[in-house]
This record gives sequence, structure tokens and C-alpha cells, in this order.
Amino acid sequence: MHRLVLLRHGQSVWNREDLFTGWTDVDLTDQGVAETRHAAGLLRQSGVDFDVAFTSVLKRAIKTLDIVLEDMDRLWLPVHKHWRLNERHYGALQGLNKTETAARHGADQVFVWRRSWDVPPPPIEPDDPRSAVSDRRYAGLDRANLPRGESLKDTTERVIPFWREGIVPALRLGARVLVAAHGNSLRGLVKHLDNVPDQDIPLFEIPTSRPLVYELDSGLVPMRRYFLTDDGGQEEITWPERSGSAAA
Amino acid sequence: MHRLVLLRHGQSVWNREDLFTGWTDVDLTDQGVAETRHAAGLLRQSGVDFDVAFTSVLKRAIKTLDIVLEDMDRLWLPVHKHWRLNERHYGALQGLNKTETAARHGADQVFVWRRSWDVPPPPIEPDDPRSAVSDRRYAGLDRANLPRGESLKDTTERVIPFWREGIVPALRLGARVLVAAHGNSLRGLVKHLDNVPDQDIPLFEIPTSRPLVYELDSGLVPMRRYFLTDDGGQEEITWPERSGSAAA
Repeated sequence: MHRLVLLRHGQSVWNREDLFTGWTDVDLTDQGVAETRHAAGLLRQSGVDFDVAFTSVLKRAIKTLDIVLEDMDRLWLPVHKHWRLNERHYGALQGLNKTETAARHGADQVFVWRRSWDVPPPPIEPDDPRSAVSDRRYAGLDRANLPRGESLKDTTERVIPFWREGIVPALRLGARVLVAAHGNSLRGLVKHLDNVPDQDIPLFEIPTSRPLVYELDSGLVPMRRYFLTDDGGQEEITWPERSGSAAA
Repeated sequence: MHRLVLLRHGQSVWNREDLFTGWTDVDLTDQGVAETRHAAGLLRQSGVDFDVAFTSVLKRAIKTLDIVLEDMDRLWLPVHKHWRLNERHYGALQGLNKTETAARHGADQVFVWRRSWDVPPPPIEPDDPRSAVSDRRYAGLDRANLPRGESLKDTTERVIPFWREGIVPALRLGARVLVAAHGNSLRGLVKHLDNVPDQDIPLFEIPTSRPLVYELDSGLVPMRRYFLTDDGGQEEITWPERSGSAAA
């Protein structure tokens, strides 16, 4: 059996302020730090351990990972950071208040931007100071690959190559894997692992700092998936109707 | 020109308590954290920047690195952790008080253990609970390569392969490199870079959290090396007499 734990970062400053965040590199709040320490405690309690970790190039995920590794006395584990695990790029919405945006564009439009499968947000212009074009961490990327605003479908499609080329090889070697990432990059992984229908995955909520454990068979097909709960238990996830899975 | 910064970790709990530490995985003190934040400030002030970082598998070095990367807004940089950057293994002395050990074995003997080039400490037994044999982070190592107590010469000899295979390739690609490590693994690097005589290198002191900057020519031969000072200046290091260098 292979084991994989997905962990969404703790509360960020812009989660708290109800702003569209995307690729904006905001920090954790004190509450985000505290809930991540709590998550580390749940992982320790559950007896889960790791051999390697993966995260994005955004500090809210990296710090979430570092807190967990420190509290588990596993700071020495190899950590791989990759932009493909970044949050969904929220285009020109990045930095806008969600409530104000709903007042301006209508709640229906904002719901579509937030919870549709394949509708991207308005794109960010390359000369916009919020664009990733001038950010050194993306300098190695082909400009054509640099997102200007992604639908969940777009995010999923750029996460999966990293799943295949970065994470799957580690699992096949028998490594116990921790992925500390973001609401939508993790939705993309969950959709792929469990073959979740397009219309269902946008509504699947992964709470901040709530470990989601996958038990995979030798073909990396999920056998079980559950959240660790505060009472030390497991909250199983079952999908309405599943049509098989083609994980790796 | 290539640039390389060597950084010894901030004060650790066992630095403060005057114990032989070696491979014991002790944490930073509050003072160690504070002096590391100060070091990050000096690096920012000096305009030095990085593309990649290397550290040991010991938390006092990893946390020193993480603090610097966070304060420089560079948490997203790739970080490589390797046991070859670990502190010198202090054998059966690990955990002993330096003053008490001097009282028992004589100050001269302790000076030899601490500041000779090629005299190892008494070896640790494999069944000693302080041994690294049962530590999962070294499970991938051949038992025969697992140190039981190293002279500075031994430490230098196991650091250099990682310099050649891990750090030199990054420098040759043009990366600006930060190495966060330990007093003796960094002495080994300095000896190699500057071809420091055997009798001189044990006496070369790298203060905790004091950035040591190397400027290297295209053949990776050092042109200048200096500590960053608190007033924003540079304290040049000059060796008594140098007989050329064969860095890479």
C-alpha cells in the first residue's frame, strides 16, 4: 500500500481579509500557524510518517510544510518546491475583495468564477504589477506557459504533469509522501486520483490545515481517502457515484 | 564572477550549554534565532542574493537557512539537504560537557581533540543510543561510511565530494549559492577553497550567524573572501602565506 497526505496551507492573510489571492505570495496569519501546529499534532497522533515532501513556490504552503516538518521532527526530509503546485491563478481578480467583486459583477458571476470547472477569471495583463512576468521565481518558465488567469480545469491540467513526473516516481519507490499546497491545486489532484466528475470537483472543500490521507493500491489507485479529525479519528470521503479511476 | 556565501548556524542549545554536539540534532536558542535574523539583515543590506541553497540534515542549520530565506523573501528557492554538510562527528564526546571533559582528560587532550587536524575523538559504539546507526535519516548510507567519530581531516574529506558533485555544478551554471552549515564542515570547505595548511585551518574561527562571502573567478578560484560586518562593511580574510589554490 502507498500512502499520500494532502495538506492545504493554514489560513493566510488574504483568506482572512476575503481577497482573491491566487499567485499573490501572502503569509500565514497567526491563526494559520496555530491550525497548522494542530494539524502536525493530528499527523503525529495518527502515526503517519513521511519520506519526502512536495510544495509550491508560495510561502503560505512552504511555511505550512515547514511547521509540520518541524513539529514532526522531520525537518531533514527532502522537500521539492514546484510552481505547478501553486494555487489557481486568479487573473485580474487577484487582490480584489470577494464581497465587493460580487457587488460589482453580481453574485452569480462571482460564483461562476469561483466554483465553475472551466470558466477562467478575467486575465491579468502582462504589464500589470500583479503579473508573475517580472517575478524571478518564474524566470525559468516559457512566457507562453505563464498563466494569466486559470479555470480550475487549467489548474488541474498543469498540476497533473507534476503529479506524474514528480510525485508518482517517489510513491513507486515506496516513499510516504506529503503534499502541502493549495485549495485548487489539491482539488486538481483529488479530481485526478478519484476521477471526480467536472461538475462535482469545484464544490469539494478541503479545509485549511486539515490532513487528507489517501491509501493507494500498488497501481496507485485510491482504496480509501479520509480527513484526520480532531478527536483522532478518520472522516471517510465517499463520492456519489464513481466510475473507476486511472490514478497514475 | 561567482559568488558563494557560507553561513554557520546561529547559537544552538548545546553551544550555550558548552556541550560537545557533533551530529546530535539540537535546536537553536532564542539568541541563535535573533542573531540569524540579524545575519539576514546584513545579507539584504549588502545586496547579496541567491539562486539555490545547501544545508545539512541537522535542524540548527536547516532552521538557520529557513530564517534567512524567509527574511530575504526567498523561501521559494530550491534547498538541498545533505548529511555531508553535517557538523564534524564528535564520537563518544557527544553530549559531554567541555569543561568537565577537560577536568577529566586534561585541557591539553581536549585541545587536541578540538583543534588538531587529524586526531579523531574516541569513537562512539554502534550500540550507543547516541550513535547515528538507528537514525532513519542516515538509513540510506552504507554502514561503513557512517562516521563514529571524526577528525577535522575526516570531516573535510567527506565534505569535499559534496562540494564537487553538489555545489560546484550549481556555481558553474551561474547560480549564486548559500551554504548554511556548521563550524567544521565550513572549515573543511574553506580549507579546500583557499588551500589552507593543515595546522592553520583548525584555528580559523567562523562566528555563528556571520556571513562569509567568497568571490570566485571563472575557474572557481577565490579572489576575495570576507565576513559581513555589523556596520554594513566587509572584514577581509587574508591567510598568512598562500601557495595557490585548486578550488574545484
